[in-house]
Amino acid sequence: MNFKQKYVRYKSLVDDCLERFIAQQEPRSLYEPLRYVVAGGGKRIRPVLLLLCCEAVGGRATNALHAAAGIEILHNFTLVHDDIMDNAPSRRGRATVHTKWDTNVAILVGDELLALAYRALLQTKSPSIREIAKVFTEGVVEVCEGQAYDKEFGTQGDVTVSDYLVMIEKKTAKMVAVSAEIGALIGNGRRASVAALRRYGQHVGRAFQIQDDLLDIVAEEKKFGKAVGGDLVEGKKTFLLLEALRRAKGSDRALLRAVVKSKGGSRRLIPEYRRIYYETGVIDAARRRVERDIAQAKAELHHLPSSDARGMLVWFADMLLNRTY
Amino acid sequence: MNFKQKYVRYKSLVDDCLERFIAQQEPRSLYEPLRYVVAGGGKRIRPVLLLLCCEAVGGRATNALHAAAGIEILHNFTLVHDDIMDNAPSRRGRATVHTKWDTNVAILVGDELLALAYRALLQTKSPSIREIAKVFTEGVVEVCEGQAYDKEFGTQGDVTVSDYLVMIEKKTAKMVAVSAEIGALIGNGRRASVAALRRYGQHVGRAFQIQDDLLDIVAEEKKFGKAVGGDLVEGKKTFLLLEALRRAKGSDRALLRAVVKSKGGSRRLIPEYRRIYYETGVIDAARRRVERDIAQAKAELHHLPSSDARGMLVWFADMLLNRTY
Repeated sequence: MNFKQKYVRYKSLVDDCLERFIAQQEPRSLYEPLRYVVAGGGKRIRPVLLLLCCEAVGGRATNALHAAAGIEILHNFTLVHDDIMDNAPSRRGRATVHTKWDTNVAILVGDELLALAYRALLQTKSPSIREIAKVFTEGVVEVCEGQAYDKEFGTQGDVTVSDYLVMIEKKTAKMVAVSAEIGALIGNGRRASVAALRRYGQHVGRAFQIQDDLLDIVAEEKKFGKAVGGDLVEGKKTFLLLEALRRAKGSDRALLRAVVKSKGGSRRLIPEYRRIYYETGVIDAARRRVERDIAQAKAELHHLPSSDARGMLVWFADMLLNRTY
Repeated sequence: MNFKQKYVRYKSLVDDCLERFIAQQEPRSLYEPLRYVVAGGGKRIRPVLLLLCCEAVGGRATNALHAAAGIEILHNFTLVHDDIMDNAPSRRGRATVHTKWDTNVAILVGDELLALAYRALLQTKSPSIREIAKVFTEGVVEVCEGQAYDKEFGTQGDVTVSDYLVMIEKKTAKMVAVSAEIGALIGNGRRASVAALRRYGQHVGRAFQIQDDLLDIVAEEKKFGKAVGGDLVEGKKTFLLLEALRRAKGSDRALLRAVVKSKGGSRRLIPEYRRIYYETGVIDAARRRVERDIAQAKAELHHLPSSDARGMLVWFADMLLNRTY
C-alpha cells in the first residue's frame, strides 16, 4: 500500500466513524442539516494527520479514531458558523446550511457540532485525557479569536501582513497543530516528539493557508472547483493582497487600494490584479513562504525515530505543497 | 451565617472567579461583548447549586469553583445564541449582544463562551475528569436538542403537554441536573449520592421552568422586572397554554386557539387569558406540578448524610418554589 492508498484508507476510516457516530434522527430540524454537513465530504486532512501522528510516535491509529472524528466535527462547526458570518451561499459545490435551511438552524447545528466534537473526543481512552481535552479546547478558543480578527480586518483600513499572519496562525494553523499534538498524545509519545509534531502541524497549517490564498489566483479553474479570483472579488485581505499593497506603486497601487476601499474588486479586472501580483513578486514570495514552512515541517520530523508513519508525514507535507485544488 | 447569606457569599465567589477568568482584551470585537454578557448578572443558580452539591457529599466547594464558573459560562452561551434565534431585543433589562453589536458578533461570542466554559471546567483537578467532561458534554447536547424542539414547536400546530415536558427536560432541567451531578463528582461522592443529586437537580430544574411559565402570568409586574404575559404575546407554547388548550371549551378555547394560529396573542387580552387559565384550573395544575417536583427533589436528599450543605439544598429548593421573580 503506497502513501496515496493509505491516505484514502484512513480517510474512509474517518468517514465510517463519522457516519456511525452521527446516527441520531430526532429532533429532525437539528440532525437532518447536521448530517448533511458532515456527509458533505472534504479532504479530511486534520483527522488523517491526527491518525498519522499517533502512529508516528508508536501508537495505534485505531485508538485515535474517535479523536480524529472529533477534530473533523469541530472543523465542520467552524465552517457552518463562518459561512453564516461570511454570507457564503455555497461550499464544496453545495448550498450552505443557512441558505438551504435558515440562519437559526445553522447557528444551532454549529453549536451541536461543537458539542458532538467533544462527545467524540471524550470517547478516547488515554491517561492524558485531561491534557488532550485542554489542547482541543485551546484550539477552539484560538479558532474563535482568529475568526474575530478575520472579521475585524473586513472593516479595518490598515491591516498589515503581520496582522494577517497572526490571524491565520489562530484561524487555520492552530487547529492543524492541535490535530498533530492530540494524535501524538494519544500515541503516548515522549514530550519532545509531541512538541515536534505540534510544530510540524503548525508549519503545515500555515503553508496550507497561504497555498490556499495562492490557489485562489493561480489555480486552473476546472481543478479548483470554484471561480478563480474569488478572494479579490470579495475584497478578502489575503497575504497576496496585503503584500502587494505594500510593494505596488502608481496606478497599480491605486487599483489595489480600490479593492480595499470598495470592499471588493471587479471580476473583469482579475487578469490585471494577477499581473500586478506577478510583477510585484508576491506570487513568488508566497511560494517561497509555503516552501519554507513545508521544509521546516519536515525538519521537525528528525526528532522522531524512522518509521513508515514518519515517511508518510513527509509525503503528507509535500502533498499539501503540490496540491492544485 | 444563614442560608440566604451563604447563597450571596457563594454567588460572589462565582462572580469573582468569572471576572478573573475572563480578563483577556484582544481581539476586542470578541472579548468586549463577551465580558458584557458575563458581567450582566443573573441569579447564578446553577453554579451555586454545583458548589452546594460538592459540599453535600463531603467535598470542598473551593475545589469546584472553576467547574461552577464553567457551568455559568455555558449557561451564558445558551442565552446569547437563544436570544438571536428568538429575536429578543433585551435580557435582564439590557440590550442583547446581537442588538447592541450584531448577529455575527453574537454568534462568535456564543461560540467563544462555549470554548471558555470547557476551559474553566478542565481546570478542575479530579480523577473523574473524563466523566465530568462527559456529563458536561451530554448537557450541551441536550440543551441544543431542547432548543431545536422549542423552535420546532413555533411552527407546529399539534404540540402536546407531553412534547412540552420532553422539551423543558432537555432545554432547562438537564443542565441543572448536570450542575448537581458535576458538583457531586468533584466532591468524590458515592455512586448513589451522585445519582440522587442528579435527580434532585432534574426535579428542581423542571420545577424552575414551570414556575417561570407561571410567573409570566401571575407575577407582580414590578418584582418580575418585565411585562407580565410576555409568553402569551409571543405565542410561546408553555405548559399553561398547552394544558389550557386541552381543557378550555367554546369561545375560551377559540380565544386560545387564535393565540396559537396567529403566533401570538393580544396584550389587551391578557386579563382574559388569565381568567381562562384560572377557570380551567391550569394555574392550580401548574402549581401542583411545581410543588410535587420540589417535594421529590427534597426526598432525594434522604440518600445523603445529614449536613449543613444538605440542609441548604432543602432551603434552595424551597427558595425556587417561593420566588416571585
